[in-house]
Amino acid sequence: MQLIHFSEDGQSRIGIKTERGFLNAAKAAAALSLPVPSYIEDVLKDPEQAAQLDAILTHADTLTDEAYYVSLDDELVFLPVLSRPGKILCIGKNYAAHVAETKSERPKKPLVFSKFTSALAAHKEGIPIPAGTDKVDYEVELVVVIGKRASCVSPEEALKHVAGYTIGNDVTARDWQKGSPQWLLGKSPDKFAPLGPVYVTADEIDPTNLDISLKLNGEVRQNSNTKHLIFDIPTIISYISQHFALEPGDIIFTGTPDGVILGYPEDEQVWLKPGDVIESTIAGIGTLVNTFR
Amino acid sequence: MQLIHFSEDGQSRIGIKTERGFLNAAKAAAALSLPVPSYIEDVLKDPEQAAQLDAILTHADTLTDEAYYVSLDDELVFLPVLSRPGKILCIGKNYAAHVAETKSERPKKPLVFSKFTSALAAHKEGIPIPAGTDKVDYEVELVVVIGKRASCVSPEEALKHVAGYTIGNDVTARDWQKGSPQWLLGKSPDKFAPLGPVYVTADEIDPTNLDISLKLNGEVRQNSNTKHLIFDIPTIISYISQHFALEPGDIIFTGTPDGVILGYPEDEQVWLKPGDVIESTIAGIGTLVNTFR
Repeated sequence: MQLIHFSEDGQSRIGIKTERGFLNAAKAAAALSLPVPSYIEDVLKDPEQAAQLDAILTHADTLTDEAYYVSLDDELVFLPVLSRPGKILCIGKNYAAHVAETKSERPKKPLVFSKFTSALAAHKEGIPIPAGTDKVDYEVELVVVIGKRASCVSPEEALKHVAGYTIGNDVTARDWQKGSPQWLLGKSPDKFAPLGPVYVTADEIDPTNLDISLKLNGEVRQNSNTKHLIFDIPTIISYISQHFALEPGDIIFTGTPDGVILGYPEDEQVWLKPGDVIESTIAGIGTLVNTFR
Repeated sequence: MQLIHFSEDGQSRIGIKTERGFLNAAKAAAALSLPVPSYIEDVLKDPEQAAQLDAILTHADTLTDEAYYVSLDDELVFLPVLSRPGKILCIGKNYAAHVAETKSERPKKPLVFSKFTSALAAHKEGIPIPAGTDKVDYEVELVVVIGKRASCVSPEEALKHVAGYTIGNDVTARDWQKGSPQWLLGKSPDKFAPLGPVYVTADEIDPTNLDISLKLNGEVRQNSNTKHLIFDIPTIISYISQHFALEPGDIIFTGTPDGVILGYPEDEQVWLKPGDVIESTIAGIGTLVNTFR
């Protein structure tokens, strides 16, 4: 299943991908006299609401009028795929070519840090560059969405706890990140964690072999494949879960490949500025677009 | 005003300190036919719910029957003072004597890191020691509760954004903290952020001169005063707010004084074990008690 999360008349709505396009779950539910969830995280946390979404999808082929479908035009206001995750975890230095470009040492175990949920942003949402930084950088990443509580799970069991995947950009103020031994301030400015546009359930995707790329103002800057992850998703989940429990709706940014601005020779580093457009693409999921302002 | 947060018949309740003891706001509201908030963060975020609490307190002296008051006995199940803060921020190395005992350099600006809200625990709640660590340490801290959005505020304006104060313990797995360049894994195990027992509004307290101490199994281990903070509360709030907005209900652990286990000579470090009791005391607020298990 592929879902989007959007706003309609100030209400949170779920769109479900069908052959006819993204079905507006709320309109479909009204026509079918069925209950409907409004948040993707509620579908993850509550089997009853997941069943509601399944029921709507089952009857979708009776809904032929295009009024039941979402117009993916400029008018559509996307919401972050997940609006209220309990935790946003991130893995640093998880592609060898990115480790090399940042002249870092390859980590011996997953390097885990976090962003605040206040940093979430939606597909097409503008990202403000805060006044006090002039070194803002992009980082396209495959994002794992947890579907089932994971505490002290083995790598072999780990994927059973994954509900699905989406695309994230781990936007980073490099001067703030490097200005402290702890990266938090550089990682968590408001809107520095755009997420979307689509949430794809785990049954539809092989996370071990997905092309991942990023364009800045139309120019390809990052271009790799998730097969190059140093620590794969089962290893990451198992590792984190030895320290604390992962809960449904928690998300994990799995690390960025090479091509970030920080990786350029110092005299060629041109940092993000208002008006810059980043397109973050992962095969089988889509393209997350954000403009800086 | 001084508030506690507790559970009664599975419901979240607020207790308000009066001369007769802590008034059960829900029982009082029922008797007075008034509406009542259930969460302290709702009182912070919603002026209407704050007014509801004021109205209950105004009429409290008519409620003389002890059935309206909370028995502070072993039966009482405390909840974390704040159950759902948006962000938990922490300041590291913020007392000179603690910087010295950990053989660290004194930070030139506030050293900011975070804990996940999943780490919250209540007064008297047991704190599990995770299987993979054997170096768990305590850190008593004054905790600031934000009441009004703060974005790019000056130190002079900062205290206007503070709603109140409570006590926190920044429990830390030292081996996990030091096993990664980022402290998150050692700081955020489940229940590693006990908070309480009382939330005191800012008008009742001078945060610049509060005795702060910690006992381990009855023995005084930490004993200082908040006047020794390297970066004071206005400086911390102003600094953080230059990077991202602080929102009502966000909390800031302001740092721990000396006396942590890590500060002992290596051959005298006896790490926390199941059964150990920590009592974290701040003058004018109270004593937060937690037992490890």
